[in-house]
Amino acid sequence: MSDQTQETYQNSRLYRLRHSTAHILAQAVMEMFPGESQIAIGPPIENGFYYDFDLPRALTLEDLPVLEKRMCEIIAGQHKFIRTESNIEQARKQFAHQKYKLELIETISQTHTVEGTAEKNESDVISFYTHDTFTDLCRGPHLDHTGEINPKALKLLSVAGAYWRGDSNNIMLQRIYGTIWSTPKELRQYLWTVEEAKKRDHRKLGSQLGLFHFSSDIGPGLPLFTPAGETLRHLMESYVRDVQTRYGYQHVWTGHIAKEDLYKKSGHYENYRDAMFPAMTDENMTFRLKPMNCPSHMTLFKEMGKHSYRDLPIRFAEFATLYRYEKSGELTGLTRVRSVTQDDCHIFCTPNQIQDEFALALDLIQEVLGRYRFTDYRVRLSLRDDDGKYVQDDEKWRIAQSALKTALDNSGLDYYTEAGEAAFYGPKADFMARDVLGREWQLSTIQVDFIQPSKLSLTYHGEDGQEHTPVVLHRAVTGSTERFLGVLIEQYAGAFPLWLAPVQAILIPITDRNLEYCQQLRTTLQDNGLRVNIDTGNERMNSKIRKAQVQKVPFMLIVGDKEEQSKSVSVRLRSGKNMGAQTIDEFISITNQQISSGD
Amino acid sequence: MSDQTQETYQNSRLYRLRHSTAHILAQAVMEMFPGESQIAIGPPIENGFYYDFDLPRALTLEDLPVLEKRMCEIIAGQHKFIRTESNIEQARKQFAHQKYKLELIETISQTHTVEGTAEKNESDVISFYTHDTFTDLCRGPHLDHTGEINPKALKLLSVAGAYWRGDSNNIMLQRIYGTIWSTPKELRQYLWTVEEAKKRDHRKLGSQLGLFHFSSDIGPGLPLFTPAGETLRHLMESYVRDVQTRYGYQHVWTGHIAKEDLYKKSGHYENYRDAMFPAMTDENMTFRLKPMNCPSHMTLFKEMGKHSYRDLPIRFAEFATLYRYEKSGELTGLTRVRSVTQDDCHIFCTPNQIQDEFALALDLIQEVLGRYRFTDYRVRLSLRDDDGKYVQDDEKWRIAQSALKTALDNSGLDYYTEAGEAAFYGPKADFMARDVLGREWQLSTIQVDFIQPSKLSLTYHGEDGQEHTPVVLHRAVTGSTERFLGVLIEQYAGAFPLWLAPVQAILIPITDRNLEYCQQLRTTLQDNGLRVNIDTGNERMNSKIRKAQVQKVPFMLIVGDKEEQSKSVSVRLRSGKNMGAQTIDEFISITNQQISSGD
Repeated sequence: MSDQTQETYQNSRLYRLRHSTAHILAQAVMEMFPGESQIAIGPPIENGFYYDFDLPRALTLEDLPVLEKRMCEIIAGQHKFIRTESNIEQARKQFAHQKYKLELIETISQTHTVEGTAEKNESDVISFYTHDTFTDLCRGPHLDHTGEINPKALKLLSVAGAYWRGDSNNIMLQRIYGTIWSTPKELRQYLWTVEEAKKRDHRKLGSQLGLFHFSSDIGPGLPLFTPAGETLRHLMESYVRDVQTRYGYQHVWTGHIAKEDLYKKSGHYENYRDAMFPAMTDENMTFRLKPMNCPSHMTLFKEMGKHSYRDLPIRFAEFATLYRYEKSGELTGLTRVRSVTQDDCHIFCTPNQIQDEFALALDLIQEVLGRYRFTDYRVRLSLRDDDGKYVQDDEKWRIAQSALKTALDNSGLDYYTEAGEAAFYGPKADFMARDVLGREWQLSTIQVDFIQPSKLSLTYHGEDGQEHTPVVLHRAVTGSTERFLGVLIEQYAGAFPLWLAPVQAILIPITDRNLEYCQQLRTTLQDNGLRVNIDTGNERMNSKIRKAQVQKVPFMLIVGDKEEQSKSVSVRLRSGKNMGAQTIDEFISITNQQISSGD
Repeated sequence: MSDQTQETYQNSRLYRLRHSTAHILAQAVMEMFPGESQIAIGPPIENGFYYDFDLPRALTLEDLPVLEKRMCEIIAGQHKFIRTESNIEQARKQFAHQKYKLELIETISQTHTVEGTAEKNESDVISFYTHDTFTDLCRGPHLDHTGEINPKALKLLSVAGAYWRGDSNNIMLQRIYGTIWSTPKELRQYLWTVEEAKKRDHRKLGSQLGLFHFSSDIGPGLPLFTPAGETLRHLMESYVRDVQTRYGYQHVWTGHIAKEDLYKKSGHYENYRDAMFPAMTDENMTFRLKPMNCPSHMTLFKEMGKHSYRDLPIRFAEFATLYRYEKSGELTGLTRVRSVTQDDCHIFCTPNQIQDEFALALDLIQEVLGRYRFTDYRVRLSLRDDDGKYVQDDEKWRIAQSALKTALDNSGLDYYTEAGEAAFYGPKADFMARDVLGREWQLSTIQVDFIQPSKLSLTYHGEDGQEHTPVVLHRAVTGSTERFLGVLIEQYAGAFPLWLAPVQAILIPITDRNLEYCQQLRTTLQDNGLRVNIDTGNERMNSKIRKAQVQKVPFMLIVGDKEEQSKSVSVRLRSGKNMGAQTIDEFISITNQQISSGD
């Protein structure tokens, strides 16, 4: 969740609903183990709540329905949530038998001391919330009474271990996760989403579809792409390349390494060193894997000779694999890797061109996101505030921020601004897109940069006869091929649209004597630009069809004697739908139509 | 020159001709500085000869015609080359005033001692060749007499410094380079080739055409490609990719780094470490930039799970940039770089499939080389001999060598074998292709590998129910994008064929009022897949045409009011030829025809 979203959530009814339900869960658990339960903390979280306990025995999944049932009874009791306040000393007495609560009270008291005067202030106010028989140390807020909760919108989900205060040196507690919504419909929707997200997990699907592998021989976070996975990469990058070319971007090639000194000049060494791979040093020179393209693109801009204002804007794009030394514990499938192939672009322009270039980039991003069926997105426009960290050039900031706002206003895009969230070198806009499961991903980004061009001494010859420093816009549309592919696998549940499917059709001969005709068909289809395989295996037809469905191949073309005689194929879809016999020309026309529609 | 070519050359008349001419040069120089010249050595070399001298003054280019004139007189004298023999002692007397010759005689005498008995054998035979007044310490062979030389086929070329015995601790001598051919026509052809090679130097043309730059900020041997250069790279790689796909190759992606341990397992660390970039080491792990793709492709093969003999052959191709730590003194433009994007392929197959797979690779290579107008090539087939270095599996060698020979015989390709030139892990075939200047380049290569698959524990399930180690064929077709682009720039003298030209046509508006029509035309041409620019500069039309010619743009499309009214363009070629007015459809049809013909 972004900070802004987080703040909105904390003020919402849903937040109070979840918080109150967590208290009810704690009551139910304490009743299950009378006098033997130690309760820790139980906050609302995104999509639900949890509570941590120290109990005489391990909880099992069988306990959850029992607890749920008791929670429903408590809810039915319509107990008021009553806030009371006391001082530290009273709080200690209240929770005399709850050691975790006592520890929390000590922390609160110490915090008060540190934050306030040097003396301890034992009269500091501590709040409790009580409903029915249960009282918790709690800031609130809560619902008015338990009856506001719809018990049919409640579900306890799982039990997990969790260290007290998240510290692995502490005792391991038992955490119960639950979820609660305003209506049973919302609960059903959420549970479906969770189930669907599990099914769509790109690591699971990536393996099922045979798209990529990680190997301990290569290293963590460094995926290897199979032929099917590489085909996806290639199609994705070729598509963006074509769009970029149409929008007047030029593609360049700057390799994968540069001298470390370049990153000292650009400022990356100072600010970004921890994310860089270790140095390669010989007696004369130190190299680094590129963590960013910008210093290389700017160096090329310089090497190409003098530039006039009439040559601007110049837009350099490159699909370059960058290497970032993410902590191995933070690596996740394709969405967090160490080899990051960015669809990166740097636009060199005059300050007056910022608005047009930003607008052009907005158009391009909308076109590309639309092609991938991302239509529900909003733009977060990050501006400066009065913090001293920002580059001190008020005029530049004024021009750039106003250019970005005007372009966004003209675009009709849904956007919101966040002051103080700009990079220190300039304002930026990020596209936050929701996938079909409603999850929000940060994909595209456009950043204005006032600093790096001058650090690397870039200039252009202005209309006034003077040398000026160009502004650079950093722009990524899908972000990186690896991460975006991870997102796409989940967005499509592995069933890629026809234009993107690594194998678009699979020919299934019913008998061996149909194999030759299948080979002719494959050639015809390949000549028409389709990616086609033949399943020559020994299995029976139905098992080949099932296999193709698991592989999510869009079309299965079944070919027996009947089809061979009538020069046709029997077409089935991965959904299971049977389209019946089609001539090969009819089939090609179906696919052409579907590809050009983007489906 | 290859060893075999070298041997053929040493037995040729051309070799004797050049050797004899070198002696005549030495005589002319000694006569120019009577009693003051010390002569060193003067061998025939590829395309000519040289002789090194220690002289009382520096030679200048003005000396060369004087020497040439005297050489012609000596030639006209029809002096016989007479061989005489003597022992070491006599040789010392003969060259008592020639200190370099004396040093050579001492070396010969020491060599004899070492090679022969422990005692010095002062009676060892040393040969001299004498013509006219000049005698040289020399093994020969020579022409019969100076009159066999055609003085019109002789040219002294240059003077350069050269250390005695090539050792920079020794004195610097003066070297005169010359060339001599059988006929004046051959001389003219050779001088044209030299001149043309200078004009075509890819470093010079690369800069003139704005294709690539080197930057001291990035590092030696690490080119940056401009939009035009990247377009070339992209077209070259896309073309080979398409051909490979048509031939049943599958493309994979394996990134640019791997753990160093992988190269220890594969054997590269032991044999190839010096060519690798320095290691990247953190506390837990050491990475290396990939110097080769094979270990990564083999790792992917393994990670993809169990393979059956029915799945083979599997052909993995990748355009991966490899990094090789060439010595900075040996880097040359694009033909010797540190970032090497190989069009690399690894074919996993059974021993019985070697012949078919090798034949398929031969076909593919011929198709690709033909597309780039390389039609004059021969194949060097490197086989094993009885050296102990070769993998000891006679049966495997027998099968593989016979498979390669049979496939070459069937192909009708011009090939020759070299015993003892195979890699220790298997036989190989290299394509030696001549460019339009007759220079030979080693381009494509196919290598059989018996070793690495077993080092990396690759297996497949055989028809016999047992696990077997697959054979791997390493195959590169153009070698690397960088080096091949360097070769192509020289092959085409920068005038790329239409399908490969970064900019295929440039629209030149005669006045500003024709600009809008030019923009419409550009859109139409781009929609037809052409790469088109508009020259919007302030210069006059003729200067724009000249600029486009220097840039070697295939078509200049001049657009004035007349053209606008008749919906046409006035077409000029980079050769200067004027094709007159063409409608836009006519022009598109011309380009389509030319592109599909490969011109």
